[in-house]
Amino acid sequence: MTNFNASFMAFPLQKQQKRTIYMVLVATGLVCLSLGVIIGWFSNNNSRDIISPKDIPSNQMNFDYKEHQRQMGDTFQSIMNDLNKDNIRSNLKNYTSKQRFAGTENVMDMVKHIAQQWRDHGLDKVEITPYEVLMSYPNTTNPNRVEIVMTDGVPVFTSAFVEKALDEDGKQSDIIPPYNSWAPAGVVEGELVYVNYGQIEDFMFLKNNLSIDVTNKIVIARYGKIFRGDKVLNAQRFNAIGVILYTDPANYDIYGTSNTYPNSWWMPDTGVQRGTVGADGDYLTPFYPAKEYAHRLAVNKTTINIKIPCQPIGYGDAIHFLRKVKLTVNNYLTMVTVENVIGIITGNVEPDRYVLLGNHHDAWVLGAIDPLSGTATLTEITRVMGKMKQADIRPRRTIVFCTWGGEEVGLIGSTEWVEEYMKVLYERAVAYINVDYAVAYIDNLVAGTSPLLQDPLYQAAKIVPNPDPTSPYKTLYDIWNKTSPGDGTVFFFLFSIQIYVIFQNKWDIPSYPLYHSAYETFHMFTTIIDPSFNYTLAVARLWAVLAWKLADETVFSFDVRRYAKSINDFITTLKDEFGYEWQINNVNIVALESASNNLTLAADNFHNHILNINQNDLLAVRMLNDKMMQLERTFLDPEGLPGRPIYKHVMFAPSKFDSYTDNSFPGIVDTMFEIQHNNASSWDLLKQQVYVATYTIQSAANSLDPIGL
Amino acid sequence: MTNFNASFMAFPLQKQQKRTIYMVLVATGLVCLSLGVIIGWFSNNNSRDIISPKDIPSNQMNFDYKEHQRQMGDTFQSIMNDLNKDNIRSNLKNYTSKQRFAGTENVMDMVKHIAQQWRDHGLDKVEITPYEVLMSYPNTTNPNRVEIVMTDGVPVFTSAFVEKALDEDGKQSDIIPPYNSWAPAGVVEGELVYVNYGQIEDFMFLKNNLSIDVTNKIVIARYGKIFRGDKVLNAQRFNAIGVILYTDPANYDIYGTSNTYPNSWWMPDTGVQRGTVGADGDYLTPFYPAKEYAHRLAVNKTTINIKIPCQPIGYGDAIHFLRKVKLTVNNYLTMVTVENVIGIITGNVEPDRYVLLGNHHDAWVLGAIDPLSGTATLTEITRVMGKMKQADIRPRRTIVFCTWGGEEVGLIGSTEWVEEYMKVLYERAVAYINVDYAVAYIDNLVAGTSPLLQDPLYQAAKIVPNPDPTSPYKTLYDIWNKTSPGDGTVFFFLFSIQIYVIFQNKWDIPSYPLYHSAYETFHMFTTIIDPSFNYTLAVARLWAVLAWKLADETVFSFDVRRYAKSINDFITTLKDEFGYEWQINNVNIVALESASNNLTLAADNFHNHILNINQNDLLAVRMLNDKMMQLERTFLDPEGLPGRPIYKHVMFAPSKFDSYTDNSFPGIVDTMFEIQHNNASSWDLLKQQVYVATYTIQSAANSLDPIGL
Repeated sequence: MTNFNASFMAFPLQKQQKRTIYMVLVATGLVCLSLGVIIGWFSNNNSRDIISPKDIPSNQMNFDYKEHQRQMGDTFQSIMNDLNKDNIRSNLKNYTSKQRFAGTENVMDMVKHIAQQWRDHGLDKVEITPYEVLMSYPNTTNPNRVEIVMTDGVPVFTSAFVEKALDEDGKQSDIIPPYNSWAPAGVVEGELVYVNYGQIEDFMFLKNNLSIDVTNKIVIARYGKIFRGDKVLNAQRFNAIGVILYTDPANYDIYGTSNTYPNSWWMPDTGVQRGTVGADGDYLTPFYPAKEYAHRLAVNKTTINIKIPCQPIGYGDAIHFLRKVKLTVNNYLTMVTVENVIGIITGNVEPDRYVLLGNHHDAWVLGAIDPLSGTATLTEITRVMGKMKQADIRPRRTIVFCTWGGEEVGLIGSTEWVEEYMKVLYERAVAYINVDYAVAYIDNLVAGTSPLLQDPLYQAAKIVPNPDPTSPYKTLYDIWNKTSPGDGTVFFFLFSIQIYVIFQNKWDIPSYPLYHSAYETFHMFTTIIDPSFNYTLAVARLWAVLAWKLADETVFSFDVRRYAKSINDFITTLKDEFGYEWQINNVNIVALESASNNLTLAADNFHNHILNINQNDLLAVRMLNDKMMQLERTFLDPEGLPGRPIYKHVMFAPSKFDSYTDNSFPGIVDTMFEIQHNNASSWDLLKQQVYVATYTIQSAANSLDPIGL
Repeated sequence: MTNFNASFMAFPLQKQQKRTIYMVLVATGLVCLSLGVIIGWFSNNNSRDIISPKDIPSNQMNFDYKEHQRQMGDTFQSIMNDLNKDNIRSNLKNYTSKQRFAGTENVMDMVKHIAQQWRDHGLDKVEITPYEVLMSYPNTTNPNRVEIVMTDGVPVFTSAFVEKALDEDGKQSDIIPPYNSWAPAGVVEGELVYVNYGQIEDFMFLKNNLSIDVTNKIVIARYGKIFRGDKVLNAQRFNAIGVILYTDPANYDIYGTSNTYPNSWWMPDTGVQRGTVGADGDYLTPFYPAKEYAHRLAVNKTTINIKIPCQPIGYGDAIHFLRKVKLTVNNYLTMVTVENVIGIITGNVEPDRYVLLGNHHDAWVLGAIDPLSGTATLTEITRVMGKMKQADIRPRRTIVFCTWGGEEVGLIGSTEWVEEYMKVLYERAVAYINVDYAVAYIDNLVAGTSPLLQDPLYQAAKIVPNPDPTSPYKTLYDIWNKTSPGDGTVFFFLFSIQIYVIFQNKWDIPSYPLYHSAYETFHMFTTIIDPSFNYTLAVARLWAVLAWKLADETVFSFDVRRYAKSINDFITTLKDEFGYEWQINNVNIVALESASNNLTLAADNFHNHILNINQNDLLAVRMLNDKMMQLERTFLDPEGLPGRPIYKHVMFAPSKFDSYTDNSFPGIVDTMFEIQHNNASSWDLLKQQVYVATYTIQSAANSLDPIGL
């Protein structure tokens, strides 16, 4: 059979960001997202003024829809004109002036500063939300190390404790040394085995084809392909006693060491990619916010699942290790405070509907790309929208600005906040737009979204000009079309939007090379990544225009039929697979297909309903918008995915076998993967998962019906 | 310390009905209930026209609130006048003419008939919803029995296989013989031990005070005090091998056998109370509807937890058993179809908001009280409201009539239907009003409800006249006040309403005596229970008026502050308990108190907000009503109660130790009960549950805020 992952998967969105969205919105069982109604779908040329108001009894309301539409266009232009790239640069310079690692004084200072900026910008309410959480830190006085030891135990080589500074901005005394958070402390000694990317397939290949057993050995794996935490879990499954992770030049310096940072964006041999190997979320207060008075689990009762020491090193060090090595990890667990800043502009018609803009502010080191290029942009948007508010130009719905703490070590700040406000968010949130980093490389704009949010994203991209005036492509949307012709293929992601300019297409590399190293400095960003800040400004414009659109449009502009279409595509392929290659009971597939057809029918009816709605009938508009908000929620199953109860979305989730990969219908696709790998007991589960999908799609169809029972 | 159950508990609502509400609405993780806004609270004298519309710009809308209020009053009168007790009598006669046990042809015939009646009454849509489910049946050719055996194994006495018919209506050939559904088949022989009510306390008393060990013995327990299934589970815990349940004359014939049915409502010695001993809900397709194509668990993978045989007998038989007995149970499991009838009248302003009226139709035998007195009433309401609809008088919101199948053996039909429509119900249901039996004895009206639904219930009761024209009490509300002075004490139950006229106060007996026996005949009902049908008519009126009120009022008339007050009362008592007798960390209680004060404050603010709302502003009204609908949902915790994940409501649930008893804050109260019984490991859980309550109350406060973040 074909590879299901490949057939149905979204294009590969970028790692950490993907996890952000999943964890903020899904891991907590929450749908912060929902939608509205179609404006754009029957007109590709004009992104506004699409549903013509019909039969508006002029005596009924004093709301003028046409005037509203015109004002909206003006507002987009005014927002775009006011966004200032020099402010973004100045924010970025300020934010990246010190290391900003979660739980440190430095990051708390920055949080206070951001909150004050947002207050000065005139938001209605700005609040710092602290949570007392568990963190994993490296011991700075007794650093982690990898050593080559002689038989008498004397080390003949020791890995570097810190990365050598390569620009002025990087000369900081308090940089957190390279480590993998949540790896336990331990000293292990043993033969070293190279395990390539540390995927299940790599370990199987070693065992089956090369007869290499990693039991009681230390394994060395290169970064890439799958989430680093899954590499360590795989090593544990195969009974290794320790893991060394390194950035392979083949992925991070593909032209050889002759031209690395500070001369290019390629990683020098002294650079080390930090990163968490733990699970995301909330170890001590799962499902509840870590308020001061919260009840906390004992550490030995948590789900921390990394049991063997693990340490990242640079490739300059990695080449020294051939056989017998000693790995010393001195990480320790401690309680720290992680803070978010939440800023609010209250909507003037429907204050109880939220559009959220989010980004984290904690960095492994200086974080000039990840995340502070995003944070600097977000703050500039608060300035522009705060100014509008002070001039009494408020959006219809409430806009919520969020800058998250503790993201790098497991999305801690966003998880705690969502846990705290889960119930109101579930009922009221309309959309969440995340921009972890504005620009990583100038090549193409990348954005991922739920099928329902594709239209507003396209429409916003059609408004924002291409920063390059010499290009034949006039708007961001045009640049997109250059490398991603057709629609529906580029955007196929959760019910939220993730935007950034990225390097994706030129090299097939796991991330931008300096990712999570000490070399993500302001100097690096301003000499290599986006010296003009023109591209960062374009992302700022897209983010702001899209947010305003979602917050201020009378009727949501989402296209229900895109969802029906995506599901039908999946069903068709699945039916072929089941029909010809799988022996599963056919009644399941027939029922699944029928539910899917019902959804298509419901989507069409709903569309016709929208065409006939009077846009000035505020109650009818609210009812329609509510219905669209409910649609996405119907895809949540409170029971969660098999063996992964925190993942609630039936249509999209990270793969069970690599949390950096997406699956459509993960319950079905993951189970088929297990069956392919000879886990026969999964047949029953597969049938059950097909039923869950059927039931969920039918529920979605019901939710579009005026009555629904 | 004081008894928490007694301090905070609701008044004891009737058994099976309570379970109906819990299971329909809670066990499935669903809140079918929600609410609206206060009308009644600052005026006790006038139940309508309470929020005077203010500043209505007459040119803004063509909706006239005052005219709407006047029409509503007229409508209540017209509904009450049209409800006809002769129709109810005729429905009851028809429905009770045969046994109506779940899964039998008889009940399917009746379902078809009801559906046809409802269609004839003009509802917009009437549908039969079949589910293929597992059932436990007695073997009619090889009946269950209890025997006294000699040492050579020869039986010298055998319990009756059937109940002797005592009136013409009871002479039926196909009555399901007495049994306890979900008890497994088995033949056990051993000494008999009398265990009183079979409560934990009874077994502890036998063990500790009388040194009686029930290991390998058959126990005989009388009905009453706790749910019969919990008696069997207790017997299992103490290693008994079989259970005999009987109706003790001390509870069911308190004046002695001289004057039993058919001369009075007391149970004759030949009568046997049937009943399920299994858990409610859904064994084969938990959390999903049992559609034809559903995936089903293997029986050995289900949560069926009754492991030893169990059989009910009459007290005429029970007196024969003294020591060594043989218990033969031949129950078997089989798949059957269980059907509901769902009838809909579509609302003309907000069709996507539902008020549900529910009742089951399956009976252990003829079911003249339980449930067909309720079903006969419900059908009469469909006639009256169907007629109104045909005259173009529709309610603002949709009304849904539900008659459930398979209730007696575990609330099967309602559970499956709620599972099927969980997602739309969760978003759209406003209230659920259940009337399992209209009248059980003429003494007082009993109704239980969530604090938020108290006001509309009071208001409806003030409109319905007392059926007894000679009484000094003019309305149902006045009768209530006779025995239940004050407010807040009588009604303190889930977020739904349960109504019936009952015997409760005169005798302290577990249920009406003929409950679940073959003697619940039409003859019995019309000679003993309510010969005039005047009281049944009064319940019909209350049910219909309340439903119309909830479905047609512009602004919901619920009083948020009642909830805040109930919680504050609990907190105060809890704080005293914790402060003086418990050593728990005080910070928890302070936080709980503070959350509770926030809720009180939010309730007050919300109240002020309502006073200022323009009732003609349809969008504002919808937003306010939505907020009230959300309030009750915030009390749902997706994690469920400790060890009982299907129970989601943090404020109300059946006790963990007796599913017939309610607890307020069951997570806290049940854990305190365990600690009292020396389960020291529960201390940590108690702190956690106090935190969950704190968090939930704070979420409720947030949900009342215009923004909420």
